[in-house]
Amino acid sequence: MADLHLTVDRGAGGIAGQIARELREAVRQGRLVAGERLPASRELARDLGLSRGVVVEAYEQLVAEGFLVARVGAGTSVAPAAGRPVAATRDPLPPAREPYYGHRPTSPDLGAFPRERWLASIRDVLATLPADGLDYGDPGGVPDLREELAAYLRRVRAADVSPGNLVIVGGVAQGLSLTVRALAGQLPEGGAGHDLNRSVDRIAYPAPSSGRVRLAVEDPGSLRQLPLLRAAGADLVAVPVDGEGVDVAALAMSGVRAVLLTPAHQYPTGVVLSPRRRAELIEWATATGAMILEDDYDAEFRFDRDPVGCLQGLAPDRVVLAGSVSKSLAPGLRLGWVVAPPGIAESVRLARGELDLGSPVLEQYVLAHLIGTGGYDRHLRRMRREYRARRDALVRALAEHLPEVTVHGVSAGLHLFAELPGGWDERSEAATAQACGLAADPVGPMRSSPGPPALVMGFARLPVHRADQAIRAFAAHPRG
Amino acid sequence: MADLHLTVDRGAGGIAGQIARELREAVRQGRLVAGERLPASRELARDLGLSRGVVVEAYEQLVAEGFLVARVGAGTSVAPAAGRPVAATRDPLPPAREPYYGHRPTSPDLGAFPRERWLASIRDVLATLPADGLDYGDPGGVPDLREELAAYLRRVRAADVSPGNLVIVGGVAQGLSLTVRALAGQLPEGGAGHDLNRSVDRIAYPAPSSGRVRLAVEDPGSLRQLPLLRAAGADLVAVPVDGEGVDVAALAMSGVRAVLLTPAHQYPTGVVLSPRRRAELIEWATATGAMILEDDYDAEFRFDRDPVGCLQGLAPDRVVLAGSVSKSLAPGLRLGWVVAPPGIAESVRLARGELDLGSPVLEQYVLAHLIGTGGYDRHLRRMRREYRARRDALVRALAEHLPEVTVHGVSAGLHLFAELPGGWDERSEAATAQACGLAADPVGPMRSSPGPPALVMGFARLPVHRADQAIRAFAAHPRG
Repeated sequence: MADLHLTVDRGAGGIAGQIARELREAVRQGRLVAGERLPASRELARDLGLSRGVVVEAYEQLVAEGFLVARVGAGTSVAPAAGRPVAATRDPLPPAREPYYGHRPTSPDLGAFPRERWLASIRDVLATLPADGLDYGDPGGVPDLREELAAYLRRVRAADVSPGNLVIVGGVAQGLSLTVRALAGQLPEGGAGHDLNRSVDRIAYPAPSSGRVRLAVEDPGSLRQLPLLRAAGADLVAVPVDGEGVDVAALAMSGVRAVLLTPAHQYPTGVVLSPRRRAELIEWATATGAMILEDDYDAEFRFDRDPVGCLQGLAPDRVVLAGSVSKSLAPGLRLGWVVAPPGIAESVRLARGELDLGSPVLEQYVLAHLIGTGGYDRHLRRMRREYRARRDALVRALAEHLPEVTVHGVSAGLHLFAELPGGWDERSEAATAQACGLAADPVGPMRSSPGPPALVMGFARLPVHRADQAIRAFAAHPRG
Repeated sequence: MADLHLTVDRGAGGIAGQIARELREAVRQGRLVAGERLPASRELARDLGLSRGVVVEAYEQLVAEGFLVARVGAGTSVAPAAGRPVAATRDPLPPAREPYYGHRPTSPDLGAFPRERWLASIRDVLATLPADGLDYGDPGGVPDLREELAAYLRRVRAADVSPGNLVIVGGVAQGLSLTVRALAGQLPEGGAGHDLNRSVDRIAYPAPSSGRVRLAVEDPGSLRQLPLLRAAGADLVAVPVDGEGVDVAALAMSGVRAVLLTPAHQYPTGVVLSPRRRAELIEWATATGAMILEDDYDAEFRFDRDPVGCLQGLAPDRVVLAGSVSKSLAPGLRLGWVVAPPGIAESVRLARGELDLGSPVLEQYVLAHLIGTGGYDRHLRRMRREYRARRDALVRALAEHLPEVTVHGVSAGLHLFAELPGGWDERSEAATAQACGLAADPVGPMRSSPGPPALVMGFARLPVHRADQAIRAFAAHPRG
């Protein structure tokens, strides 16, 4: 007969629940083993000074859960299958790359998140939203946000968009992932090109072998997106970026039928796609039936003139535009959009209906409220002024203390591209910069073909008054 | 030379932006066609009574965007690729099933959503969360919520869970989808069984052909999950449910290596899985190495006794538990969890890192706050009392006015299973019930093998004072 060592707190209420919990733990931890008999309820009740009904209730609970079995004439005992099998202790985790999260050099200043405005908007939403608004929403997004965003993107990004070809997604990452899945089932395939798969990391689950798509990506480009694109069904091809943006002749040679670009502010070089390249790209896409995936990266922050309208507005039938509030508000909101030709937009929407049933609705209403009341614009104007001042401070400090570094890509965005003198080691320079309080990543790992040493340097989190000091310390570090 | 028909509102500011917008629209709508020359900036400025610089700025903007081209000596004209190609008007949408959203008979009463508590929690979160908390979060969920939920699920669901084997997901749908993807890459395959794929709808994108998993589902069962499971890589096999829950002998015969169950309150029959079946299931899974996917459906609402602990707590190495706040708070929050053996939990977490980078963080902190402060428990206690009263009113009204209907599955959940007399047509009965203000779905489409006519009837949205009247009207409807 098992010795139960039960402790019961009579003041806490729910005595039967307490007994059940203790017995359950005893089974789990192996103190009670399969087949072991428990005392009769009457005996145990007497030992514990409780009424028998309480013990019966606890036993019944555990029988219902499968921890105990009760047989007529044989009393109550631990169920044969219960308890942790000795061999099945926790497996060691499979070796896998840790997904990247937390700070990036290009992250916005989250200290400036408009908490008061956000709270005011959610207060308004909770006060006015009909109860049905809390039910399962359209997987393509709540109507209010699709309307506000479509109007906003027409006005600010010169996009060609209506609520019907705009789908709300959980950020650009999900938008690109679902778009690639949609394309992988549809596009005709071209010839061969330079293969970038060597730099692709672990895949969490096998991607469809039928229905992959050859997708060109910028070189250098965002390393973090590659596993995601690969997992979604893309076979990646690197195409070089020069001072005008992506090399369209090389793109055409590669024979791909889709390309992912960051026209507003290329990552990492900071190049804004030139008018000539825009025209060539549209011509190429129109002639070959290819699709352009436009990651509207950093588009909110153009400092020296009006923002250049998005490519999508120029050729809405050949471009899928993906954007988010990760830079303008916060990455943690996981809120973005895809604007696409109707067939692709509908594929993305239906895919969400078969994946996660859409984005959470409350924050969609909050963003709609924020845009509709002008609060979003006001926040962006404030941040544009602030980031421009931080950019100026960083550029000034680099010019003064590190004149041998050539700075590129400063007309927009939250980072600049700092080309280092030949012979400097970009990895150790990045480490030094970080030690001096700067946000910096080496560019080498983002390249498929070799290039001069360079750093991506973010300025969104670098206050104006700290730029000079930080760069002075960085410059003073002994080299060579 | 183009006749531009420009209208400029001098009071509105941003004149250059206005001109650019008008010209852009003219190109898009085909009023300005490729190659067409624009007036010289000096002329247009004179016509409009504006300074030349404003027109130059507008032209430059559109050149940068690719709508116009400027050539030395040839003036400014519409870019060759600009404008909507005549043939490329919006495609008709591909024929596809509309994903289901909005009310379900089993939806909770969203009028009771704790708006004040939610607002108080988000106010607290926004007042205390460090700025870095708004950055990209761990794709497995924010630590605060994983800790609160693990403690909650241990206490209320008798789950065997620590924050390390709990992953936050965007609802049960996404949790199951990612779990199936994880399993599809791992599990060995068994023999053949009854094929349910005939009832599977359209697939948004091809599922991996290597790495599928044969998955048993309950018959009758939730029809809405099938496309999602199929898209995630499951080949579905139907296994019958009887008065004790799933038929484990039939399950073993089917040779599958995974099964999806609703043990706490089977959908649609309302059966609570019996102790005997629980033991058999765990024995089967342990002997064959199979995995049990436990959809913890309706577990929050057990009316006549303590909730039965989840299966996962009995065999944490063989069970994946998926739950959400869709019933307890609102489906629109898209917030749920998966508790799984460490290797599977880590696969799900990494898959999110390659899919959408995780769930939005703010509402995770809000839920953590709600659980931690006891507000979640208080809300559930209140709703349990209210739903119990609504269930009692519906059951009473059915017994009084429709004694020929047999009611099952009333010990838990937000719906009951109403078996109709043979010969009644469940489709027309469902329509009649809906017309009388009742939430009802016919069970036939949820069945793979034939069964008696029956309805799923939800009571969460049926106030106590309306039940009798609604059922009286339903009963009075002429039949046969």
